[in-house]
Amino acid sequence: MDGIKVIYNSQSMEFRKPFGAVEVGQKVKLSIVVNKDLMVATELLTFNGSNVQVGMQKEYLNNGKFKYTAEIDTFNNIGILQYYFILIDGYNRIYYGNNDEKLGGEGQIYINDPVPYQITVYEKSYIPNWYKEGIIYQIFVDRFYNGNDDGIVSSPKKNSFIYGNWQDDPMYIKDYSGRILRWDFYGGNLKGILKKLDYIKSLGANIIYLNPIFKSSSCHKYDTGDYEIIDEMFGSNEEFEKLCKIAKSKGIRIILDGVFSHTGADSKYFNKFGNYDSVGAYQSPNSKYYKWYRFINYPYQYEAWWGIDNQPNVEELEESYVDYIVNGKNSIIEKWMKLGASGWRLDVADELPDDFIELIKKKMNSIKSDNILIGEVWEDASNKISYSKRRRYLFGKELDSVTNYPLRESLINFVKGYIKSDKFKNRIMSLYENYPRENFYANMNIIGTHDTERILTVLDEKIELLKLIVVLQMTLPGVPVVYYGDEAGLNGGKDPENRKAYPWGKENNEIIDFYHKIIGIRSKEEVLKKGDLKIYDTGPDVCVFERKYDNKSIIVLLNISCSDNIIKCIDLQGSYINLFNNKEFRFTNNNNSINMSGYEFNILSKV
Amino acid sequence: MDGIKVIYNSQSMEFRKPFGAVEVGQKVKLSIVVNKDLMVATELLTFNGSNVQVGMQKEYLNNGKFKYTAEIDTFNNIGILQYYFILIDGYNRIYYGNNDEKLGGEGQIYINDPVPYQITVYEKSYIPNWYKEGIIYQIFVDRFYNGNDDGIVSSPKKNSFIYGNWQDDPMYIKDYSGRILRWDFYGGNLKGILKKLDYIKSLGANIIYLNPIFKSSSCHKYDTGDYEIIDEMFGSNEEFEKLCKIAKSKGIRIILDGVFSHTGADSKYFNKFGNYDSVGAYQSPNSKYYKWYRFINYPYQYEAWWGIDNQPNVEELEESYVDYIVNGKNSIIEKWMKLGASGWRLDVADELPDDFIELIKKKMNSIKSDNILIGEVWEDASNKISYSKRRRYLFGKELDSVTNYPLRESLINFVKGYIKSDKFKNRIMSLYENYPRENFYANMNIIGTHDTERILTVLDEKIELLKLIVVLQMTLPGVPVVYYGDEAGLNGGKDPENRKAYPWGKENNEIIDFYHKIIGIRSKEEVLKKGDLKIYDTGPDVCVFERKYDNKSIIVLLNISCSDNIIKCIDLQGSYINLFNNKEFRFTNNNNSINMSGYEFNILSKV
Repeated sequence: MDGIKVIYNSQSMEFRKPFGAVEVGQKVKLSIVVNKDLMVATELLTFNGSNVQVGMQKEYLNNGKFKYTAEIDTFNNIGILQYYFILIDGYNRIYYGNNDEKLGGEGQIYINDPVPYQITVYEKSYIPNWYKEGIIYQIFVDRFYNGNDDGIVSSPKKNSFIYGNWQDDPMYIKDYSGRILRWDFYGGNLKGILKKLDYIKSLGANIIYLNPIFKSSSCHKYDTGDYEIIDEMFGSNEEFEKLCKIAKSKGIRIILDGVFSHTGADSKYFNKFGNYDSVGAYQSPNSKYYKWYRFINYPYQYEAWWGIDNQPNVEELEESYVDYIVNGKNSIIEKWMKLGASGWRLDVADELPDDFIELIKKKMNSIKSDNILIGEVWEDASNKISYSKRRRYLFGKELDSVTNYPLRESLINFVKGYIKSDKFKNRIMSLYENYPRENFYANMNIIGTHDTERILTVLDEKIELLKLIVVLQMTLPGVPVVYYGDEAGLNGGKDPENRKAYPWGKENNEIIDFYHKIIGIRSKEEVLKKGDLKIYDTGPDVCVFERKYDNKSIIVLLNISCSDNIIKCIDLQGSYINLFNNKEFRFTNNNNSINMSGYEFNILSKV
Repeated sequence: MDGIKVIYNSQSMEFRKPFGAVEVGQKVKLSIVVNKDLMVATELLTFNGSNVQVGMQKEYLNNGKFKYTAEIDTFNNIGILQYYFILIDGYNRIYYGNNDEKLGGEGQIYINDPVPYQITVYEKSYIPNWYKEGIIYQIFVDRFYNGNDDGIVSSPKKNSFIYGNWQDDPMYIKDYSGRILRWDFYGGNLKGILKKLDYIKSLGANIIYLNPIFKSSSCHKYDTGDYEIIDEMFGSNEEFEKLCKIAKSKGIRIILDGVFSHTGADSKYFNKFGNYDSVGAYQSPNSKYYKWYRFINYPYQYEAWWGIDNQPNVEELEESYVDYIVNGKNSIIEKWMKLGASGWRLDVADELPDDFIELIKKKMNSIKSDNILIGEVWEDASNKISYSKRRRYLFGKELDSVTNYPLRESLINFVKGYIKSDKFKNRIMSLYENYPRENFYANMNIIGTHDTERILTVLDEKIELLKLIVVLQMTLPGVPVVYYGDEAGLNGGKDPENRKAYPWGKENNEIIDFYHKIIGIRSKEEVLKKGDLKIYDTGPDVCVFERKYDNKSIIVLLNISCSDNIIKCIDLQGSYINLFNNKEFRFTNNNNSINMSGYEFNILSKV
C-alpha cells in the first residue's frame, strides 16, 4: 500500500471520544482518517484475552481523504481494552497502532504485530476531596523532629546507635556482606510531629503521610515487629490517637504506611530471635503464624523481600492473615483507622495480590467513606504487569492513588534537559489518557521520596531548577507531595543520604520561602486542583500548559534553559496576572511570541 | 668432668648475698658448692659489654664438697650485671649458669654458652608510699559513668555514634578493611567519676588511673588531638582540676595516661583533616610541628603506630617536642601536674627513648617530689630489650613502676592449671630477684586492663577462680589494680568487649562484696604492703607463701583445684586468725599437713 497516509491521535476528541479512560458501560467513538478508500476495522483486545473485530464506517472527506468510524461498547468489561486498526486493500493488510513507546496520541503503521492503544475501563469510585485537592507532607519519622522536651531519645533499642548530633550524616552500620549490624537512630518521634503540626500547616500541607511507625527493630520500620503498637521510640498508641485528633482539628489528615507483603524476621509473628513472647513461625511449625510464611527449608530458608532475610514474605491470602490484617474484628486496618488514620499507603503494592488490595479497600469503605488507599507502584499503574500478570489497581475497587514515579522521572528528565518538551508532553498526556480521571487527579505527585535521591541532589543543587520542577509539580494535576526537608534545602544521594535529619534552624530560607509561596498558590486556586490539562506544543526547552475549570484558566509557562527563549503561543491573548509576583502579564499580538529569560516561569491567571 | 655436682641458687642467701637487685656501689657475695676440687671463677658481663673474670676462693666443707666464694663489686655501674661460673679442671672447663628459662634460682651446667644470671644494679630512688601502699582503680572514662544530671551525652563529636543504652555491647564501626568509620561513645565523663568518688573510696582504692582524657576523635583517646585540653565529651580543664581537688580531699590521687610516642592524625599538630585552626605537619612543611613527625613520602606516607595511619609516630627527642611535652615552661607534663595529677603512666614505654623517659621523670621530680611515673611494659622490665637495645627502665632515674603483665600471665596460668606451683613460684621469684625492691613493691599488679580480655572471661566465668586470683593479687607484693567493672562482674573478650560500660545497678553482688572484703584486708595489713615474700615449695595445685614485716607474719594458702588437696607445711605451727572470716586456724602437729577443700583460700595472721 504505497503512499498511504493515516491520521490518528488517540488524545484528540476528533479521533477518540470521550478522552481517556471511560466508565464501564460507556461507549467510545473511534475515528481514523486515511488518504485511501479501504476496508478498515478496529481490532479490540479485551482484558480477558478475546479478540473482536469491529468494522468501521467510511465517510468521504472533502479534502480527498476518508474517515472511518466505529463505536465501541465497553459493556461490563472492567479493565484494559486495547485496540488497533486494520487497513485492508484487497489481499493487502496493514495495521495502525500505538507508537513504539506506547504513550498514546499519534501512532504508526505496522506491517505485523501492531502495538495496541489502551482504553482504561473503570467503575466510578469516590475519592475524597481532602485528598484530591490536598498537599501531602511525607515524614520519615526518625529523621523529622524529636519532640521530647529534654531532647533525649526515647526508649532506644538494645544494641542500637544514636547519632551524636542531629545534623550528622546518616549511615548504615553493616558488615562486609552488607548485613546491618546495628540500627541507627536520630530520635524523631510522634511528639515531634505533634510539635511541628503548625509548621506543616503553615507550609500549606493538609495531609501527612508517615513512613511506617509500628514497632520494629530498624529505623525505617519496613520490617514490622508488631502491627498493633507504635514503636516505643516513636511513641505510643495513645500518642498516635492524640496526634490524629489534634492534626484533624487543624485540618490535617494522617495516612499510614501499611507494609503487608512481609513482616520483620524480628517480629511477634516470625520471632526469629525470640525477642517476642509469642511463639513465632520460625520457632515452631505449631505457631499460629506458621502458615503466614513461605518456608523452603524450615526454618532456615524462607522467601523474603528482595532476599533480605530480615523481611520474610507473607502469604497475603492465607485466611488467618487476611483476618488479622483486614477482615477480622478490630483488624489492623480497622484498628488504626479507628484510632485516627484517614488512609493507608500500601508498600510494594506490586507484591500484593489484587484480591488482597481489593479486600483492604472494601474494608476501609466499611469503616469511613472518605478514606484513601494509595499504592506504591513505580510505573504506569493502569497497565502494570508484574509477575507476568496484568494488575488491577485503578479500576474502581482497588487503589485510589498511586505513587507517581513516572511523573517524577519525566519532570527530572525534562528539567535536566534529557528529554525535550514534546516527549515530556507525551509522557504526561499518556498518564492523563490512561488513568481514570479521578485517579489521575489523585496521583501522588512526588519529586523525591525515602526511596530516591533527594530532588536537590538530582538537580545538581541548582535551586533555579528546583523551583521550576516544583512549579510543575504544583500546577499539574495530581496531589503534590513534599518529602520532609526538600522544602528546607536538604540534599542527599541514595539511601541513607536521602534520609538526613530535617535541618531545624538551618533551613535554606530561599527554598522554604519559595515553597510557602507556590503551595499558597496551589491551595488558593481551584483550577490548579481540578482543572483540565492542555499542554501546548512549543520549542524544546520550554513548556506551556493551561489548566481550565469552570471558565477559569491558568496558563503556566516555563523556560528550563539557562538562556533566553522565545515561546510562540499561538492562541494566547490578553491580560493576565502572574500569580507568583502579582504583576500584570500581557500577551501582545506581535506574532503571539513571548520572550522568556533563563529559568523564568510564569503562572498566569486570566484577568 | 664426669660425676660433677653443683649446688647453687641465686635466690638463696647462702649463695648470693644480698638477695636480688642491689644498690650501686654495694658488694655482692657469690658462692657455689661443687663436689670436686677445681678452679672456679665468676665471669661478669657488665652493662657496657666488657667481661671480667673473678677468681673464687675455695673452702672445703665437711660433707666432702667444696665451696667457692667471691665478692663482686658493682662500682659505679648502674644497669644489668650478668654472671656465670667457670669450673676448670686442668684442660677441661664447664660452666654453671642460669636455667634455660632465665628465671634465676637454681641453674644448670653448660658445656658452652652459659645463660648468665642477672644482678640488677640501681640507684636508689624514692617511690611515695601513697603509691606503693595503695590500690589503683583504672577507669576507661567513656565507659565508667555519665555524670550529667540529665543523662545526655555532652558535646558529641560530629559524625559520631552514641550507644542507645548504657548496657549495650560495645562494637567498632569499621569498613571492610578495618578502618574506623565512626567513633562510638557511651558518654562517661569526668563528672561521672566525680560522682562516683565515694564508690571508689568505699571500694578501698586510693589511686585512680585514667585512660587518656585529652581532646581526640576516638573513644579511647590514644590518638591525642590536643594535649592541652580535656576532651569536650569528658569535661573541661576546670572539671579536671576540681576532680583532682575533691579526690585529694578524699585521699584519692589521679594518674594520667601520657601518650607521647604518637599523636592523632586528627590533631592540632598533624591536622590531617583540617579540623584544627593550627597549621599542622600534614598541611605544610612550614608547620612548626613538621619536625615532630617522620614522613616517608610527604605528606601521604608517614611512620605510624603499628601502621595505624590515624596515629602518626613522633620524633620524641626533637627539641621542640621535648620542650612542648616535657621541659618548656608550662609543658604538658607540668601543666597537668599543676592542675592536680599525681603522676603519669607512659603509654607504650618501649617506643619511647630512654632519654625521653628520664627527662620526664626529672621534670616531674622538679614539680612534685611524691610523683609517680609508670611505664607500659609487657615483659620483665629489668632486662627488657626492644629494638635490639637493652632498655633503662628501673635503674633509679626512670620509671617507678611498670605494668606487671608478667605477673598477670603467671597468675592466670597458675590458676587455670596451665603451670604448676613450682613454675609459678619461679616466675614470681624471678621478678622479685630482678627488680629493685622499691620497684617490685611498686609494680602495677594487673589482672586485666583495657588491652586484655577481662579476667572473668579469661577464667571462663568461674567466680571461684576469680576470687583465688584476686586473693593472690591482693596478698603478693605490688600495687593491685582494679580495672573498672572487674569488681562488679563485668566480662568480655578482646577489645572492644573488654571496654563495656560499668553495670551500674546490675553489679554482681557476690563479686563486689568479695572485692570490698579482700581490699579491706589488703588496706589494713601493713605486712601485705611491705612484707618480705617467701613462697613455699608445695604440691602442684596449691600455693603457700608468707609475707613478713616487722615481726608480723601473714600466711596465704590456696588450693586452685576443684578437689581437696593436702598441703604439707613443714615449718608452720601454732594458732592463726583467718583474716577473711575471722575464724581461728590452727596448724596441728600431725605431720604439719593441712587439708584444703576445692578452691579454698586462707589468709592467716599469726595470733
